[in-house]
Amino acid sequence: MIVILKQGVRTEKRDQLIEWLKSQGLGIHISEGQYQTVLGLIGDTTNLDMDLIASLGIVDSVKRVTEPFKCSGRKFHPDDTIVTVGDVKVGGGDFCMIAGPCSVESEEQIVAIAKAVKASGANMLRGGAFKPRTSPYDFQGLQATGLELLKIARQETGLPIVTEVMGVNQIPLFEDVDVIQIGARNMQNYDLLREVGKLKKPVLLKRGLANTLKELLMSAEYIMAGGNEQVILCERGIRTFDDYTRNTLDLAVVPMLHELTHLPVIVDPSHATGIARLVPPMALSAAACGADGLIIEVHNDPLHAKCDGAQSLRPEEYDTLARKVFAVRKAAQA
Amino acid sequence: MIVILKQGVRTEKRDQLIEWLKSQGLGIHISEGQYQTVLGLIGDTTNLDMDLIASLGIVDSVKRVTEPFKCSGRKFHPDDTIVTVGDVKVGGGDFCMIAGPCSVESEEQIVAIAKAVKASGANMLRGGAFKPRTSPYDFQGLQATGLELLKIARQETGLPIVTEVMGVNQIPLFEDVDVIQIGARNMQNYDLLREVGKLKKPVLLKRGLANTLKELLMSAEYIMAGGNEQVILCERGIRTFDDYTRNTLDLAVVPMLHELTHLPVIVDPSHATGIARLVPPMALSAAACGADGLIIEVHNDPLHAKCDGAQSLRPEEYDTLARKVFAVRKAAQA
Amino acid sequence: MIVILKQGVRTEKRDQLIEWLKSQGLGIHISEGQYQTVLGLIGDTTNLDMDLIASLGIVDSVKRVTEPFKCSGRKFHPDDTIVTVGDVKVGGGDFCMIAGPCSVESEEQIVAIAKAVKASGANMLRGGAFKPRTSPYDFQGLQATGLELLKIARQETGLPIVTEVMGVNQIPLFEDVDVIQIGARNMQNYDLLREVGKLKKPVLLKRGLANTLKELLMSAEYIMAGGNEQVILCERGIRTFDDYTRNTLDLAVVPMLHELTHLPVIVDPSHATGIARLVPPMALSAAACGADGLIIEVHNDPLHAKCDGAQSLRPEEYDTLARKVFAVRKAAQA
Amino acid sequence: MIVILKQGVRTEKRDQLIEWLKSQGLGIHISEGQYQTVLGLIGDTTNLDMDLIASLGIVDSVKRVTEPFKCSGRKFHPDDTIVTVGDVKVGGGDFCMIAGPCSVESEEQIVAIAKAVKASGANMLRGGAFKPRTSPYDFQGLQATGLELLKIARQETGLPIVTEVMGVNQIPLFEDVDVIQIGARNMQNYDLLREVGKLKKPVLLKRGLANTLKELLMSAEYIMAGGNEQVILCERGIRTFDDYTRNTLDLAVVPMLHELTHLPVIVDPSHATGIARLVPPMALSAAACGADGLIIEVHNDPLHAKCDGAQSLRPEEYDTLARKVFAVRKAAQA
Repeated sequence: MIVILKQGVRTEKRDQLIEWLKSQGLGIHISEGQYQTVLGLIGDTTNLDMDLIASLGIVDSVKRVTEPFKCSGRKFHPDDTIVTVGDVKVGGGDFCMIAGPCSVESEEQIVAIAKAVKASGANMLRGGAFKPRTSPYDFQGLQATGLELLKIARQETGLPIVTEVMGVNQIPLFEDVDVIQIGARNMQNYDLLREVGKLKKPVLLKRGLANTLKELLMSAEYIMAGGNEQVILCERGIRTFDDYTRNTLDLAVVPMLHELTHLPVIVDPSHATGIARLVPPMALSAAACGADGLIIEVHNDPLHAKCDGAQSLRPEEYDTLARKVFAVRKAAQA
Repeated sequence: MIVILKQGVRTEKRDQLIEWLKSQGLGIHISEGQYQTVLGLIGDTTNLDMDLIASLGIVDSVKRVTEPFKCSGRKFHPDDTIVTVGDVKVGGGDFCMIAGPCSVESEEQIVAIAKAVKASGANMLRGGAFKPRTSPYDFQGLQATGLELLKIARQETGLPIVTEVMGVNQIPLFEDVDVIQIGARNMQNYDLLREVGKLKKPVLLKRGLANTLKELLMSAEYIMAGGNEQVILCERGIRTFDDYTRNTLDLAVVPMLHELTHLPVIVDPSHATGIARLVPPMALSAAACGADGLIIEVHNDPLHAKCDGAQSLRPEEYDTLARKVFAVRKAAQA
Repeated sequence: MIVILKQGVRTEKRDQLIEWLKSQGLGIHISEGQYQTVLGLIGDTTNLDMDLIASLGIVDSVKRVTEPFKCSGRKFHPDDTIVTVGDVKVGGGDFCMIAGPCSVESEEQIVAIAKAVKASGANMLRGGAFKPRTSPYDFQGLQATGLELLKIARQETGLPIVTEVMGVNQIPLFEDVDVIQIGARNMQNYDLLREVGKLKKPVLLKRGLANTLKELLMSAEYIMAGGNEQVILCERGIRTFDDYTRNTLDLAVVPMLHELTHLPVIVDPSHATGIARLVPPMALSAAACGADGLIIEVHNDPLHAKCDGAQSLRPEEYDTLARKVFAVRKAAQA
Repeated sequence: MIVILKQGVRTEKRDQLIEWLKSQGLGIHISEGQYQTVLGLIGDTTNLDMDLIASLGIVDSVKRVTEPFKCSGRKFHPDDTIVTVGDVKVGGGDFCMIAGPCSVESEEQIVAIAKAVKASGANMLRGGAFKPRTSPYDFQGLQATGLELLKIARQETGLPIVTEVMGVNQIPLFEDVDVIQIGARNMQNYDLLREVGKLKKPVLLKRGLANTLKELLMSAEYIMAGGNEQVILCERGIRTFDDYTRNTLDLAVVPMLHELTHLPVIVDPSHATGIARLVPPMALSAAACGADGLIIEVHNDPLHAKCDGAQSLRPEEYDTLARKVFAVRKAAQA
């Protein structure tokens, strides 16, 4: 950690701070510049309150030098993590295509969609059983029944299933689910993160609407610190002043996260835009900039979908898109 | 609900939509303008997917007319709700002063601070036992022990206690807490909201960093729909491009929420700014615009606080501030 | 325009509003719903103050139905506008590749870069002569001399030149420039927009950092209303809470603007990200989602560039990128 | 400036960088920590491109230590600047109350409003003659005639006049105006800033919708570097995801700007909220946190105002508000 002192600080005040820092077990390296003094702190600063030091009257600013991402950081784990789900690999050059309806509605619906997206090249099936809805009066999902229907669809198609958990008490129901999703609203539900960190199961962690990359990686740390290193990150749009789409898809995070972390990064253009006709162009953009996969909403009857019909592609639209996604990805890598 | 059709829509397409809406049990009132046709939907539209209709090729836009805030809305409950906590009333003209440390650290600490803030005019004590921290490696609070220490401080001072719950499994430990706080990161943790909705206990619900007022009120609906109508709303800053404070305190929500809802609205200037010297001016601003109370971090030794020392006032600073808060409030109401 | 009244409005108040609206020369179509009354205003509402009506005590909300984009809107001009710059066409299926340094520094520099980017497939040359800099103490560009050097580079390569104008008094100097750029900070400098609207010359209009699509199109209206319909729109990133890049590139505007307007839309990944190594992935994303062109900073010696060296590609990096851009574009369209 | 190198950088690479920095005329102070090397740059770093150095492969990050605010910074000018406008003083403990209509419409209108607001305690008159409107089809102000009407109102009441300039060519018309306003959309119109920097006349500089405090101060530097040190800063709301008000009033800038700069800081609650009934509470909040004045829209007939009627107070509302503003300010200072 580096502490930059204000100009013209009295020696006495400066020495008091240095003594206090030393009393915390740190070595101090003093560098006197023309305009400022810089203190380099040597030793374990993880328990030092950076904001507190920054708030002292004689301190101009503080900068943490060592990265806090012990598990998720690229620095200590240079090779890409490859998350394995059955036969599917996510990360490290492999591309995953997750598709399915916003919510599971019936056996016919989920099986029909699963077959359709598989035929188009999808290799995982998504479908909501427990649904986080802004209003308590909206449809909340088929819950446990929904999970059973997903398993039937898996049996019929062989596609691994991805579905969202909303609370720690639901976790036992997810034992036979292939990938557990943590939704954007729960990205900092630390209680839940800690619990999925105890599982031996891939976790799809969505970025919160107003969370920085550092916060996303710290949430991944909550899971990984518990021993579960199979984390897939997902960009799904952030909240900005923009009002023409549901959220603003922030694609530059894809190459930036690939620098910062070894974890795979996928993109959800359906929730990011909220508008079905914007999903194909944004999916192609995601493929072009190096995402490790896509998660896309597909519904065979959007007009009667129980939720998010407005952002769902029809199976034939998904089929056309999937073909282009593979072509764009190939062209971008050539 | 009002559906505005695009210009030049074919009669046939228009009639298909009308038929479909009628099949959902709605009456349709058609209004032909010079440039557009407007459909007024009569009947219960709560289960209609507004986004879906808006996404149809022939529809220009859709507007919901009836408000979704059945419990929290001012419309159906014109009088202010007054939340009662022991002898303290929040809302309806009464002002609450909640103060205390970010986290409970020891019996001496919490009792000393409780006595000090009480002497300055505080009428409730805050203190974190379970702490939501961005990093899993940071101090997570004294947990159950912290709750016990809060009760001791209550016994010593008579101040009711306010503290944050982070997960449904912790709720039994909070039985003897006076006000349960839902933090900003959990504002849309619906699982948790539903559980505190079953309690007979005031809930302090903080606005999330990127949540609209509508979303805040819908989260209050989750609690109230369960039967618990004692909800206090709290503005604590939103996330914007601004980087000179931790968050941007959005004070216009205070009068705006007073229009939309009958629930009391308090302000947290400590978390909003993250900088102790900005807390007094922002606290005075909150008092001036009609807030129903303040929740402020006070620590007797900020330099050694286990968290958020940078934003904590010392007891003597709080004392000066409290005096001014009462004076400003009086001047603004005169 | 549609005016939705609040529930339970007194007939007398309602009638007063109707009379006032009629006195403005409008026909009124009244639609009584179960919960609300909707007034459909018939006639020319362009001079009606929508915000004012919305602020009346008896009004719930107001919605404008007719679009304000008389010149730029797709509605009245369904075919794509193709802006022609010498032999280069922008829009309508043609793709433009604008490249060059942030600022013109010397004849050797600009000619060398122009030759290099032309060899890589660029068909226009960019280069700043007048530079908008946040600080008055930073390098402000070579100004008139810079324009002359650009013309030399054009002569040497045949590439049309694109450069930014910062004030109305500079316009005479731009007579022989091929495309005049209005920078993001000047997107709502209406004085300047009006002046370039009088020219017979293509204008590259960059979206402001915090401007909505509606505002961008209204700024295009300022230019087009003056008689100059050769406007190219440019997305270059918006300001959000995100701090890992200079701005957040908002690519979903590309397909969305293509719906709203007939004007061509290009993307500037250099200013959007501010980081050279993020430029190639974002350029590919822009090509994948249907942008009509790219404007990219290229410098032959970024380490010694007078500004924005951090976001400039070297010629060899641009060459590799250009090849991929064409391939991705082809794959996305197939 | 401080340059922090990445961990494990090769000595050779490090030495190259150091040589290059030395070749720029800087002294280098090297500090080796346990985990990192920090270079302290000694000498004049104002022309060094910080972003460029930060983008080098071996550099972790760069921090500028010396402040770039040579004229506006508090550091070199500790005492408050007091801007004098006739008998009115702004800053340094004096409070200004600027009021008047959004736009000047007629002699009767502007004189009547001027008399009314003066009677309520206003000490300057605002009124737009040149209006920046989002749409070219909206009312653009009475222009030169409007300026003449303002002067008549000044003659009738003695109130100094404040009005907005939109372009350099208009400046000669403003010779007899007391305070020239630079609107939010022109905050980074450097061409215009430079021109008003040559005048001997107070300038009211509004913060742009998406501008940081640093950018606001740099725009003040453009004016001050030209020799005009009479700059009044104005907070008028920023653009955020929030949609219930026109903008988000960011009041914590008031105390923060008072730390950073010696210039006076006033607040415009009318444009910030866009809703007349939110203006009084926000005006009181501004007075409570130490603003040096308020600029408020007042209209004697908001229903027929040519612009922004929705956010204008009636004279009687302004009168009530003004009384409370003085009381709150007094209470906050006590």
